[in-house]
Amino acid sequence: MTGVGLIGTGFMGKCHAIAWNSVRTVFGDVAPVRLVHLGEANAELATRRADEFGFEKGSGDWRAVIADPEVEVVSLATPNQFHPEMAIAALEAGKHLWCEKPMAPSFAEAEAMLAAARKSGKVAVLGYNYIQSPAIRQIRTLLSENTIGAVNHLRIEMDEDFMADADTAFGWKHAATSGYGALDDFAVHPLSLVQTLFGRVSRVMCDMAKPYAERRVEGGGSRAVETYDIASALMHLENGVSGTLLVNRSAWGRKGRIAVQIFGSKGSILFDQERFNEFQLYVTSDRPTEQGYRTILAAPVHSPYDRFVPAPGHGLGFNDLKIIECHELIARIGGRPANIIEFDEGLEIERTVHAMARSFEEGRWVAVR
Amino acid sequence: MTGVGLIGTGFMGKCHAIAWNSVRTVFGDVAPVRLVHLGEANAELATRRADEFGFEKGSGDWRAVIADPEVEVVSLATPNQFHPEMAIAALEAGKHLWCEKPMAPSFAEAEAMLAAARKSGKVAVLGYNYIQSPAIRQIRTLLSENTIGAVNHLRIEMDEDFMADADTAFGWKHAATSGYGALDDFAVHPLSLVQTLFGRVSRVMCDMAKPYAERRVEGGGSRAVETYDIASALMHLENGVSGTLLVNRSAWGRKGRIAVQIFGSKGSILFDQERFNEFQLYVTSDRPTEQGYRTILAAPVHSPYDRFVPAPGHGLGFNDLKIIECHELIARIGGRPANIIEFDEGLEIERTVHAMARSFEEGRWVAVR
Amino acid sequence: MTGVGLIGTGFMGKCHAIAWNSVRTVFGDVAPVRLVHLGEANAELATRRADEFGFEKGSGDWRAVIADPEVEVVSLATPNQFHPEMAIAALEAGKHLWCEKPMAPSFAEAEAMLAAARKSGKVAVLGYNYIQSPAIRQIRTLLSENTIGAVNHLRIEMDEDFMADADTAFGWKHAATSGYGALDDFAVHPLSLVQTLFGRVSRVMCDMAKPYAERRVEGGGSRAVETYDIASALMHLENGVSGTLLVNRSAWGRKGRIAVQIFGSKGSILFDQERFNEFQLYVTSDRPTEQGYRTILAAPVHSPYDRFVPAPGHGLGFNDLKIIECHELIARIGGRPANIIEFDEGLEIERTVHAMARSFEEGRWVAVR
Amino acid sequence: MTGVGLIGTGFMGKCHAIAWNSVRTVFGDVAPVRLVHLGEANAELATRRADEFGFEKGSGDWRAVIADPEVEVVSLATPNQFHPEMAIAALEAGKHLWCEKPMAPSFAEAEAMLAAARKSGKVAVLGYNYIQSPAIRQIRTLLSENTIGAVNHLRIEMDEDFMADADTAFGWKHAATSGYGALDDFAVHPLSLVQTLFGRVSRVMCDMAKPYAERRVEGGGSRAVETYDIASALMHLENGVSGTLLVNRSAWGRKGRIAVQIFGSKGSILFDQERFNEFQLYVTSDRPTEQGYRTILAAPVHSPYDRFVPAPGHGLGFNDLKIIECHELIARIGGRPANIIEFDEGLEIERTVHAMARSFEEGRWVAVR
Repeated sequence: MTGVGLIGTGFMGKCHAIAWNSVRTVFGDVAPVRLVHLGEANAELATRRADEFGFEKGSGDWRAVIADPEVEVVSLATPNQFHPEMAIAALEAGKHLWCEKPMAPSFAEAEAMLAAARKSGKVAVLGYNYIQSPAIRQIRTLLSENTIGAVNHLRIEMDEDFMADADTAFGWKHAATSGYGALDDFAVHPLSLVQTLFGRVSRVMCDMAKPYAERRVEGGGSRAVETYDIASALMHLENGVSGTLLVNRSAWGRKGRIAVQIFGSKGSILFDQERFNEFQLYVTSDRPTEQGYRTILAAPVHSPYDRFVPAPGHGLGFNDLKIIECHELIARIGGRPANIIEFDEGLEIERTVHAMARSFEEGRWVAVR
Repeated sequence: MTGVGLIGTGFMGKCHAIAWNSVRTVFGDVAPVRLVHLGEANAELATRRADEFGFEKGSGDWRAVIADPEVEVVSLATPNQFHPEMAIAALEAGKHLWCEKPMAPSFAEAEAMLAAARKSGKVAVLGYNYIQSPAIRQIRTLLSENTIGAVNHLRIEMDEDFMADADTAFGWKHAATSGYGALDDFAVHPLSLVQTLFGRVSRVMCDMAKPYAERRVEGGGSRAVETYDIASALMHLENGVSGTLLVNRSAWGRKGRIAVQIFGSKGSILFDQERFNEFQLYVTSDRPTEQGYRTILAAPVHSPYDRFVPAPGHGLGFNDLKIIECHELIARIGGRPANIIEFDEGLEIERTVHAMARSFEEGRWVAVR
Repeated sequence: MTGVGLIGTGFMGKCHAIAWNSVRTVFGDVAPVRLVHLGEANAELATRRADEFGFEKGSGDWRAVIADPEVEVVSLATPNQFHPEMAIAALEAGKHLWCEKPMAPSFAEAEAMLAAARKSGKVAVLGYNYIQSPAIRQIRTLLSENTIGAVNHLRIEMDEDFMADADTAFGWKHAATSGYGALDDFAVHPLSLVQTLFGRVSRVMCDMAKPYAERRVEGGGSRAVETYDIASALMHLENGVSGTLLVNRSAWGRKGRIAVQIFGSKGSILFDQERFNEFQLYVTSDRPTEQGYRTILAAPVHSPYDRFVPAPGHGLGFNDLKIIECHELIARIGGRPANIIEFDEGLEIERTVHAMARSFEEGRWVAVR
Repeated sequence: MTGVGLIGTGFMGKCHAIAWNSVRTVFGDVAPVRLVHLGEANAELATRRADEFGFEKGSGDWRAVIADPEVEVVSLATPNQFHPEMAIAALEAGKHLWCEKPMAPSFAEAEAMLAAARKSGKVAVLGYNYIQSPAIRQIRTLLSENTIGAVNHLRIEMDEDFMADADTAFGWKHAATSGYGALDDFAVHPLSLVQTLFGRVSRVMCDMAKPYAERRVEGGGSRAVETYDIASALMHLENGVSGTLLVNRSAWGRKGRIAVQIFGSKGSILFDQERFNEFQLYVTSDRPTEQGYRTILAAPVHSPYDRFVPAPGHGLGFNDLKIIECHELIARIGGRPANIIEFDEGLEIERTVHAMARSFEEGRWVAVR
């Protein structure tokens, strides 16, 4: 029996709740999950969400969740800025931690979170769910099997359009207090894929841009935008591979694009998160007249797709990736090998993001470490 | 509080279990779900699955599930051939019924099931989950808004390849006792879409084919295949629209294809279940130099996508369609309007399938009613 | 030196002219082409087009072209209804003939044309250009090499939208004197592919439909439409394969679609004329985790692509198909093997179309021969 | 009557020959073309190609072509390194010049070519054919009409795989004498699109990479590769727009990809040269539930597609782009407005390429001018 606490019930908090509700039914091989305690901004909302999400009780104070002796694992799905305090408190209270990404607004805070995790001896995992899709896992297998030979170049893009409307009023994401902009908001996701598939980034050279110099303020007037919706980076990985990482949160028409292009000496692989139930493979071992990108649909042969549906091509959804992540977390807590990004590797993602920002500010290549 | 019984825990049984576990967390607006009783082929399996799926108890006898006074709704996910007996028993016991499709091997049995449902006064719903996707719902909205004008033609195809391997041994689906083949195994799905979007079929002219005349028998020798993996039908709908319905369960490369093409006087709509998080729309109101099919990604503006993810283009999965269906079922039980196929309309789907088979046997057009 | 006469300079006439102008530059292995004589509806237009297209002279009387002793081959690109008289005259005058499809409005006329060709001993070829694309040629090679095993089913669709506008006035293509509608206007193209790839059709069962029952008449009032924009046919081939052929010239959004799906015991092939520089192949010899449709771009390895461009993926155009056809015609005249549809096989296409029309009228399966 | 000379009959030389043979038939509105004189490496080859391509005579000495008084325009399609001498000689001889890109190996030579063009007063045009496609022209129209609002970001990629085979022996393109590698071999093409659509580049920051450090030498041993198959650049345009330009000539699976992504304040546009008969448009003026990328097929409404085919979606080929370019060249010679890149704008492309190379060598941002 795993006792679960959840703090935060917005986009990702609900996603965690769905995962905790389904993980045992889907996978079958884990202990029963007990939904113990839910924390929200106030008692009324906490109680309502606890009821909806199937938690035994709700509290308007997140400290009550952490203090609850029945809670063994804390799902932390509050905004970024609250992560350091809550995460460190949970770890100090001896709870395992499942924390949404990114870790923290500042690198120093992220370092403190890692230190707390190390000191606690507890499992501290980040919610980088895109590494969980069967397609990405199969791509990793193909890379390890040398199917496309030695990889020599990599391109990765992440684009959405939730900031693209010029008429949207100035909000907290436009203020420098929220961070750099697309870089920390977004680039951490493609970096989680880069790190999972290829290892760490060593050097970066980044440019950033603002599509809209200012935005109207609710009530009248306008205010200069302080964050950058677009970031474009050249990068070198520790393994010697070069590549580019391009992100844009004002890209009209893009909804959840994470486009990956991997080039090797014997083939190449393409992937796009907007169609994450498929990926494309080109190999030179095919006969020349029949060489072409294969569009491979996710199927039971691509673990753990089979736990969800026994028929190929039927498709997983975004929330299913969180269920897989939850299953990996449980495995990790149980001492089994897990495909998951813990605080130590998560800190490297943040280190890379901050190096990119510094590179932009200084207009030069920057070493990540 | 809704008391749920589940009979059958294979592909669709597990899918029901996931839906019952998640429906309240996802939608928030329904009463708590109590997973009361699970039935399987034997007590040991029933107990194990009950534990995994979160049911309070399991029984090796399906009658115990139906007899359980705490069970208000029965999810019936056993093979086709068991539906009539179990469904009728459940309805006679005063339970609401959520029965997987198709209804029954024979039309007479399906008629008996409908009669039992009518007599019981209970809700009896079929598991036609493909009508639940946000894309299909949006297509229905567009049709009702006359966005592509008066529809004049329709093409629908459904193809998978689970029967395509010539080396697969003779199995129960190759024997005439299982039905006609792709027609009842498959064609009911596209017909559920046809009926939901356009209404009933009036006349049909069908051809059927066997890719493999015989199949090896385990242990030696071979046996003539008695069912048809391929069916192709011309059809006229009651609303005057003509079209075609083509199905193939030996279509190498197709995994979960349900390709729909709808042609109207002012545009057209395309959809393919293999990429069910998108659909395509062509309208003549666009300027001539910019007319083209729009690829529209499912998004929160396409209800009820927003209940799952608040960000567009992130994608639902196959199991999510069942969660939506479950939510509609609960609405229907609660007396609210619901987007669902009940036994009366389900019987019309089966009537159409049997008319197609008769048309093939007699080599002529056949009126459905 | 090949002396060429051209009759008709509309869509296809100009296409012939471009082909004759380029065939030697592209292929290099044929005798010089001499553009001798061009015929049009009147002398003025004939002279202008002759000048533009590089012909030595133009005449307002097509008989002058045929009578010209310098003309060895006649390109016949006038409307369908003029084919019989002109084609027979050209053949009787001892000219080789390159005639646009379809052969003639009535089957009897087409038979007379074939008889004239046989009697003349001259080469008489039809302009079925879609069989010339490198992709289609490679598909034929793959079929002959058994790459997808024994073919067991075939689907082919052809759709355009030039008749889709409900506001278009009644024109000659809406009158029964023009033929059946989409069937002869359109279906001959996909049938040319079917016959080239698989051989002749043996039995057909066809349905037809009119999207618009009547159309406005220029000047006022409206008139009942007599032709069918939509035709849908079930068919059996002489080789035992079953399939469907669906055509629609009122399909909003479709511009030049000819979608082919070929299913075999070891794979499948897809093709669409709207993207005719590529095709898709699925084979079961790929490892299960990497099975998927390969999108293969036309390349120099797909003859005769290399004669146009030495780099893969750069693409041929519609007019290039006619250049290839012209090259095949020249080969045929020179007594070399050629990939081309002559009058004998062309008559079989027309025979099939007429059988489909009869099947529709009689509401039953019809044997083609 | 336009008298034409052609020097070089490889890939692009033949492409020029096809264009000169067809331009009048296709467009109809230009003076007759007289194919006067063809130059090749030796007299025998020159004579053979002159015969095949329809030229009146051939010479083994290119100077004979330039000296021919009947030649008014010289098509120059020899390798890059011969351009300066030949181009300057042709201009000095008072000929108009149609020169393949890029201009020259060194910037100084390119400057000398521009100086010669200016001095001559003759038309000197570069063969940047990709700007000629109807899709690109329509995109330019859309941009000028503000259809996607103010453009704020741009991504462009060009990838092929002709250098991707690790087993290919060391060739002249691997030696530093050939230039930088992908940058001058390739990047000039996307830059021609950037300059045509948006104007000049102001600042660049470039990285380059070698997929293979050394290559085998024919006869034994290996040699260090001196050129870079991969180049990735951050860039700022003079109009304030930021973007990236990524090129790779060792990208397995890519055959003729030039992928363009243009983001504006009210929409976005996508294009890929591998499917250059289509482009994609997203606009926010569509209703939210129906917003999506439209795939727009090239059609007669996209000038000058209609000169080739009067039916939409039938497709132009790579060689057709050269026919359009030829038509623009003739217009320019005739003093009419033309969509073409002359030596002055061509020099800016080369200037940008050299700035990118310098940026890589110095590891810093470099101003183009």
